[in-house]
Amino acid sequence: MIKAYAALAPGAELRSFEYNPGELGHDQVEIAVEYCGVCHSDLSMLDNQWGMTAYPFVPGHEVAGRISEVGSHVTAFKVGDRVGLGWNSGYCNQCACCMTGDHNLCSDAEGTIVGRHGGFADHVRAQATSVVKLPDDLPMDVAGPLFCGGVTVFNPILQYNLSPTSRVAVIGIGGLGHLALQFLRAWGCHVTAFTSSPDKHDELLALGAHATLDSRSKDALKAATGSFDLILSTVNVGLEWNRYINCLKPRGRLHFVGALMEPVQVNIFSLMAAQRSISSSPVGSPSTIATMLDFAVRHNIRPQIELFAMKDVNKALAHLRNGSPRYRIVLKHGELEEANADV
Amino acid sequence: MIKAYAALAPGAELRSFEYNPGELGHDQVEIAVEYCGVCHSDLSMLDNQWGMTAYPFVPGHEVAGRISEVGSHVTAFKVGDRVGLGWNSGYCNQCACCMTGDHNLCSDAEGTIVGRHGGFADHVRAQATSVVKLPDDLPMDVAGPLFCGGVTVFNPILQYNLSPTSRVAVIGIGGLGHLALQFLRAWGCHVTAFTSSPDKHDELLALGAHATLDSRSKDALKAATGSFDLILSTVNVGLEWNRYINCLKPRGRLHFVGALMEPVQVNIFSLMAAQRSISSSPVGSPSTIATMLDFAVRHNIRPQIELFAMKDVNKALAHLRNGSPRYRIVLKHGELEEANADV
Repeated sequence: MIKAYAALAPGAELRSFEYNPGELGHDQVEIAVEYCGVCHSDLSMLDNQWGMTAYPFVPGHEVAGRISEVGSHVTAFKVGDRVGLGWNSGYCNQCACCMTGDHNLCSDAEGTIVGRHGGFADHVRAQATSVVKLPDDLPMDVAGPLFCGGVTVFNPILQYNLSPTSRVAVIGIGGLGHLALQFLRAWGCHVTAFTSSPDKHDELLALGAHATLDSRSKDALKAATGSFDLILSTVNVGLEWNRYINCLKPRGRLHFVGALMEPVQVNIFSLMAAQRSISSSPVGSPSTIATMLDFAVRHNIRPQIELFAMKDVNKALAHLRNGSPRYRIVLKHGELEEANADV
Repeated sequence: MIKAYAALAPGAELRSFEYNPGELGHDQVEIAVEYCGVCHSDLSMLDNQWGMTAYPFVPGHEVAGRISEVGSHVTAFKVGDRVGLGWNSGYCNQCACCMTGDHNLCSDAEGTIVGRHGGFADHVRAQATSVVKLPDDLPMDVAGPLFCGGVTVFNPILQYNLSPTSRVAVIGIGGLGHLALQFLRAWGCHVTAFTSSPDKHDELLALGAHATLDSRSKDALKAATGSFDLILSTVNVGLEWNRYINCLKPRGRLHFVGALMEPVQVNIFSLMAAQRSISSSPVGSPSTIATMLDFAVRHNIRPQIELFAMKDVNKALAHLRNGSPRYRIVLKHGELEEANADV
């Protein structure tokens, strides 16, 4: 039996919950969860905001742990391997997307917490192809958030072959944004953090930004007209997007990685005048995750985490829901050595 | 004095109009107009739809003719050269866009009919850098429409380095779209024409389409889910864009070349799920125009034109406004040899 934490209804507190995962699939592995990051999409799914949550619902898709069992056909892993698991826990492995390394675009990709049970548990299972080994030099406590938050912001940098000569701005400096600043800085770009909290200026510079820009100031946005090759939006709330589009240079791109529910209204003339684009992408493929981990280790890119004991999962969720964690909450299986649970 | 046809107020009929162009600029050339295409944007400008029309207004920005005078510093042209002139009649030639060959994105680019007089005239002037020589094998009567309509659809094919393996659909088969079908077919792509007139099927196949798709049929659109690498929209009216976005393959792009006034509402989840993009671009640089002309001659790509005498310009404009020219109206300076003026 797998011991997990589950919500029985939309928005409900999580409770201890056991389930029998059945026989391990021939192409699957089982991971003994040691850490699991908490992502905003765990909350969106918990609340059934996207209309695809099945209850009992076990959140958790930023898993770091060790392989505890391998399926009969799995050769890439052995018991004890340090690994991570992100948003996707399986792919069809035969569509055009999978066959060209775009597993994250596979329309049959399985979500780790969509119709199945996730990583707020002592164990979680996944198709071996969706699991990625951790580099030796990557501590396990910070590994989990790279598997969803990290790859979500790293993926467009890689996919669009961003030039290190680019001037890039990031909207929303939370779990995703604070990793984007680090990746972009290490990539060689000039990095601007849009923020509605100008008092965070020094903190954002410490994370990798060269400059901050007050997103509440119309004048500041206007002064930034034509400034950026790429604007990466990590937010899930509507903004006056045409103001940001006008901040793009010719050939610039506004890329959405935040799961935005409301439609975006685009003034085509603003795109046309300067051959600008709007685009969006979901997480990243296993290959992209592996590339990101290698890059993150080389450049010492790590999420800043607030650690909670897994048993305090409801405190952790409340903190994410009501507060502004800096910058990613991670649940630890077992007891915490240092107290953080009273945040 | 230059003899032209001008409107004195928004939407007015054109009348004979003379103006003194002054001394020829040292970097300018003067073109003796032989033919001038009629573009929808001539009508938009005539009606001051974009709020930037100055009256008296002389339309015309698809000029084909011969150099009649060259400025003192111009070395690239000599009197008698066969040339064309499109939407832009000058650039700053020093901004980052101009310095990288993106003259069409220069924010100081001068519009041939914006605040100055265009090609519905016996002569028109332009900065020499904005004028492009006609290949010997390109007849002058079909050259003009390539300089605006043609390059507008060719430009994104070139800019995004479209793969000939792509499956592409075109929305709106008019002046621009009928050229897009020809360019895309010659480029090696699979070409689909969206049309609201299924009776045009054979005609569209003759232009280069492999298939047509009834854009009024929700079922047909739904059946085309995930079908196209690129959808090129040439229309200037609002459609249910998310239906078309869903017709894009993973990594697909919806590109707007039609001057769409109303904002486009985009469902970010539709983009995100498949890493799709939306983009737009204006006309093309002089270098792109030259590349396009070379490609058009090699592949015998030509606008299908309806010829009117320049003196019948008001008839021609009424035909464009009320009818569906197939596919581009061209005005001829002097008398028509073959009658078409009674259309």
